[in-house]
Amino acid sequence: MITKGSPLHRLQIARGHLDRVIHMVQQDEYCIDILTQSQAVQSALREVDAIVLENHLSHCVVDAVKGSQDDKDKAISEVIKVFKKKA
Amino acid sequence: MITKGSPLHRLQIARGHLDRVIHMVQQDEYCIDILTQSQAVQSALREVDAIVLENHLSHCVVDAVKGSQDDKDKAISEVIKVFKKKA
Amino acid sequence: MITKGSPLHRLQIARGHLDRVIHMVQQDEYCIDILTQSQAVQSALREVDAIVLENHLSHCVVDAVKGSQDDKDKAISEVIKVFKKKA
Amino acid sequence: MITKGSPLHRLQIARGHLDRVIHMVQQDEYCIDILTQSQAVQSALREVDAIVLENHLSHCVVDAVKGSQDDKDKAISEVIKVFKKKA
Repeated sequence: MITKGSPLHRLQIARGHLDRVIHMVQQDEYCIDILTQSQAVQSALREVDAIVLENHLSHCVVDAVKGSQDDKDKAISEVIKVFKKKA
Repeated sequence: MITKGSPLHRLQIARGHLDRVIHMVQQDEYCIDILTQSQAVQSALREVDAIVLENHLSHCVVDAVKGSQDDKDKAISEVIKVFKKKA
Repeated sequence: MITKGSPLHRLQIARGHLDRVIHMVQQDEYCIDILTQSQAVQSALREVDAIVLENHLSHCVVDAVKGSQDDKDKAISEVIKVFKKKA
Repeated sequence: MITKGSPLHRLQIARGHLDRVIHMVQQDEYCIDILTQSQAVQSALREVDAIVLENHLSHCVVDAVKGSQDDKDKAISEVIKVFKKKA
């Protein structure tokens, strides 16, 4: 079962919207409408990212911090890499 | 026929990558890998946006500029709205 | 005279906020507060960007569109470059 | 003393670039050049953000994780808030 508002549920909605973008391009619809729809997909994915990252910090990173210095450094550098890519 | 590198082709590849994100979440894969894949989808969509916008500026905006002041103002305000949403 | 809400006015406010970020780093203030202040500077600069771009589209691009094909292509490719850098 | 490459050093360089943006606007320079310079300032600030966040994760968040559940939750929610604002 897929919980409403869960990352999986949100991703499936985002896929529906991406299918709509593809359809709009195929139908040669107005560029600005295509861009608006595409930006909505990206915005939905960023919201999923925030949820996944929150989950990651709460579990994996918390565990890593209790582990060795190497585990900790690796966990932090992974999060920073994700943060930088958003730039 | 779908031309390689065209917006439509890129969107279909992005959909493939989004399907992979969904699969990764279903399989409970490592959060950082999910985030990396999700950011790749967003990056692909932004590249499509740039192509669509370029096409829009070259055609619709160029036509609007030759039209009435109202057409021109509307065209520019639409582009700015898309630009701002990216912020 | 500097008009309130003009790009120049906004930039001077942004500079004031950037000075505050520098001061916060010098005083070793709480990282999250520094980040919040830094993000406010970036958000202010993006707003200025939108105003400058709007002005650019309304004047330079409109003129370029009425000029040669080369002028038009150059104007559009410059705008796309700015749009992509935002990605 | 200010170490080269440190957040403080980078921020002072960013301030120099912001002063240049202000000067360019005052001199009514070409919009695209102003936008390029403004985006360089934002890019420099994002790099500082990544350094500050890395420092924050390595110290404050690591400490918080070893503290109470409340400390941990607060630390994680603060990081997510910064991450979301970047979106």
